[in-house]
Amino acid sequence: MSSSSASALEIEIFQYIDAHQSDFIENLKEWVAVESDSVQPDLRKEVVRMMALAADRLAALGATVNLVNLGSHQLPDGQDLPLPPVILGELGKDPQNPTICFYGHVDVQPAKKEDGWNTDPYTLTEINGNLYGRGATDNKGPVLAWINAVETFRALKLVGNLWLSNKKPALTYGSRGNACFSVEVECGNKDLHSGTFGGIIHEPLMDLIALLDSLVDPTGRILIPGIYDSVAVLTEEERKLYESIEFDLEEHKNNSGVKKFLFGTKEEILLHLWRYPSLSIHGIEGAFHEPGIKTVIPAKVIGKFSIRQVPHMDLSVVKQQVVEHLEGVFSKRNSPNKLKVSMPLGAKPWLADVNDLSYKAARRAIKTVFGEDPDFIRDGSTIPVARMFQTITQKSVMMLPIGAADDGEHSQNEKISRHNYIEGTKLFAAFFLEISKLHRHLHETSHTETNN
Amino acid sequence: MSSSSASALEIEIFQYIDAHQSDFIENLKEWVAVESDSVQPDLRKEVVRMMALAADRLAALGATVNLVNLGSHQLPDGQDLPLPPVILGELGKDPQNPTICFYGHVDVQPAKKEDGWNTDPYTLTEINGNLYGRGATDNKGPVLAWINAVETFRALKLVGNLWLSNKKPALTYGSRGNACFSVEVECGNKDLHSGTFGGIIHEPLMDLIALLDSLVDPTGRILIPGIYDSVAVLTEEERKLYESIEFDLEEHKNNSGVKKFLFGTKEEILLHLWRYPSLSIHGIEGAFHEPGIKTVIPAKVIGKFSIRQVPHMDLSVVKQQVVEHLEGVFSKRNSPNKLKVSMPLGAKPWLADVNDLSYKAARRAIKTVFGEDPDFIRDGSTIPVARMFQTITQKSVMMLPIGAADDGEHSQNEKISRHNYIEGTKLFAAFFLEISKLHRHLHETSHTETNN
Repeated sequence: MSSSSASALEIEIFQYIDAHQSDFIENLKEWVAVESDSVQPDLRKEVVRMMALAADRLAALGATVNLVNLGSHQLPDGQDLPLPPVILGELGKDPQNPTICFYGHVDVQPAKKEDGWNTDPYTLTEINGNLYGRGATDNKGPVLAWINAVETFRALKLVGNLWLSNKKPALTYGSRGNACFSVEVECGNKDLHSGTFGGIIHEPLMDLIALLDSLVDPTGRILIPGIYDSVAVLTEEERKLYESIEFDLEEHKNNSGVKKFLFGTKEEILLHLWRYPSLSIHGIEGAFHEPGIKTVIPAKVIGKFSIRQVPHMDLSVVKQQVVEHLEGVFSKRNSPNKLKVSMPLGAKPWLADVNDLSYKAARRAIKTVFGEDPDFIRDGSTIPVARMFQTITQKSVMMLPIGAADDGEHSQNEKISRHNYIEGTKLFAAFFLEISKLHRHLHETSHTETNN
Repeated sequence: MSSSSASALEIEIFQYIDAHQSDFIENLKEWVAVESDSVQPDLRKEVVRMMALAADRLAALGATVNLVNLGSHQLPDGQDLPLPPVILGELGKDPQNPTICFYGHVDVQPAKKEDGWNTDPYTLTEINGNLYGRGATDNKGPVLAWINAVETFRALKLVGNLWLSNKKPALTYGSRGNACFSVEVECGNKDLHSGTFGGIIHEPLMDLIALLDSLVDPTGRILIPGIYDSVAVLTEEERKLYESIEFDLEEHKNNSGVKKFLFGTKEEILLHLWRYPSLSIHGIEGAFHEPGIKTVIPAKVIGKFSIRQVPHMDLSVVKQQVVEHLEGVFSKRNSPNKLKVSMPLGAKPWLADVNDLSYKAARRAIKTVFGEDPDFIRDGSTIPVARMFQTITQKSVMMLPIGAADDGEHSQNEKISRHNYIEGTKLFAAFFLEISKLHRHLHETSHTETNN
């Protein structure tokens, strides 16, 4: 798979990686087996165990490792839950060399066999060249690919998301934010029987459904007044950028399983995924959710929805608009119930400068390993830390995905292909080499310039 | 508590019952301990075990007991689940004596400690004279009260539902029906990530919420066209009947925990509970329902709601009206998703003739045990079997409740008070005596008449 443009050094590295595929996959299997689900409170200890495993692994590479305690966070029910620690690992300290900060996560979304998985989500299972398991692509696989790359360099005594298509590599320069909302409606402290109270009370679930129904129209347009006011205006230049991107609408539709998208062209779809906000409703807590029938009027229900916001929407303004809108809709219902709107999570969108050195290095590494230029893409989902890193370090942040579009992150039957995992490991190794080359070149150039 | 009008025989019976309170409560404790939840498929075996226990108990009274196999029913997921057997118990066969057919159920609604119970729902716990436990009032307690009454008669060698207020006894002569609906909206076979697909697909949960939001207006009025067409017209005479009923609106509101009802007068509340239809929404299956955040777009969601219908609404007409209404709302959304509306359960309303002999006997028994006349009431909830028995036997069916209005059937912290359980046992014993007296009187009268 390595292109003919690879150097002898690169070929040596890539051969080492090919020869150690089984080890790399065995490592991924061990990591996937840890149920590091960070949503369910009772699995928090598994997230902590996963962090310890990852720290050990970095230490084994020779890194100085610090586990930084982040304290605890409060659950909606008032319970205090310890946050998992963050690992700070450092490998080498020579100020003459460029520093690459790699970031990834090893916690995962909830997964249960009965959600519709074909295999046990926590047992990495290879079927037709795909490695199925929760976290395989999001994000344990890619984190291990970085570690594998570093391990390769050390073994040879030389010294890290998703592509847009299933085949073509990509570089990510922006992501949407995520403002998660919780809408609680309560009539009292106990559930009621629909025979004994049906028809004489304002049912909290009816109030909630009316509130949720007021958020988006059937064309996907958000109905919250003012929500589109700060969205960056689309320039003609930007629109052209979208035209050149390789994106198979049919393939994306097949990956999703849906029959029809809200929009018919590639450009509209990408614009609505990357640079326009969207609102999704996730579910309702407190109502009857099991199979079968239960003639209950739930006393307290909590609707969950989120807005993927984009530059230059302000989180506090969005929150205010949502609260005012919902309170307005609710007050028109004359309901005696209690309404509580909160935003338990607010993550900002992120946008990077694609002319930065790291983007050039990654582009070359991709060309070496995959033999073609990457697409410059944005991500519809949220990586809050990208924005945070950029703000704090004032350096360019880049996302270098190795998973494919059909990997099913956050969904049933999540996987990463063996090919993407192993070639991804090579890509990260090649990226190290390119950064090193570009840095030397830049250093020499700037040295010359200084001498002028 | 026995009124002064009790005969020597009645006093002997009541004293026996008082002396055996602890045994009767111990029996209820044993029954409550069985998790005979008929909603959750994996607890079906416990329902079957409960039926076997009840059968043993009847057999110990000397009854001939038959467990009748009812076959199985199909769950929405296609799974075939065996139905619990029905117990047919017969005690005595003398055609000269009147026959009383008693019916009750010993399966229960789901209950978990974490739903908000103060005690373990399956451990009968006495606090301040109340016996807390799932099934205590609905319907294991009342079933045992009948058995206790029969046991008392046998020990002395002599031979059910809820009151409207917390204190005054009642006789029930009607109940609403229950048409349970299931509305499924599906976009594909896997859940999607709201970052990767939010803003470009028709979310099934949004479709479902719009459908559910189209059912009822904020005043509680059902918006399905034609749904009120067959509701029996309220006569002036009927309205007057409602005026005389003892019903404490404040007390009922306190029992419910809600701040305000949809209507302000006793008559309006009772009319809307007993003789007008209501629609309640119970919940959504398939969406995110746990605490915390999950940025998922669920692929298949199933809304659950039910209509408590009244005479003379026809179930098949109601079903057709619901389906047509929902399909109409759905088609206006131009959604490519799949809609499936079904009515997994349809139970008819029931209305009895209050001038029947059994009503007279019960009225007298109540006067004897509680010293006052009962209210003649209807029940907002559904007892399908009342209607069925009436249709099949062509005899008058009566419900003789012993639980109080604040017992919390189908809710957290269900209970029956020790007082109601024990005095209820006496009531059933007194009822047997009254039936016997009235029958003898009727027999003598008709004999005389025949001789004329």
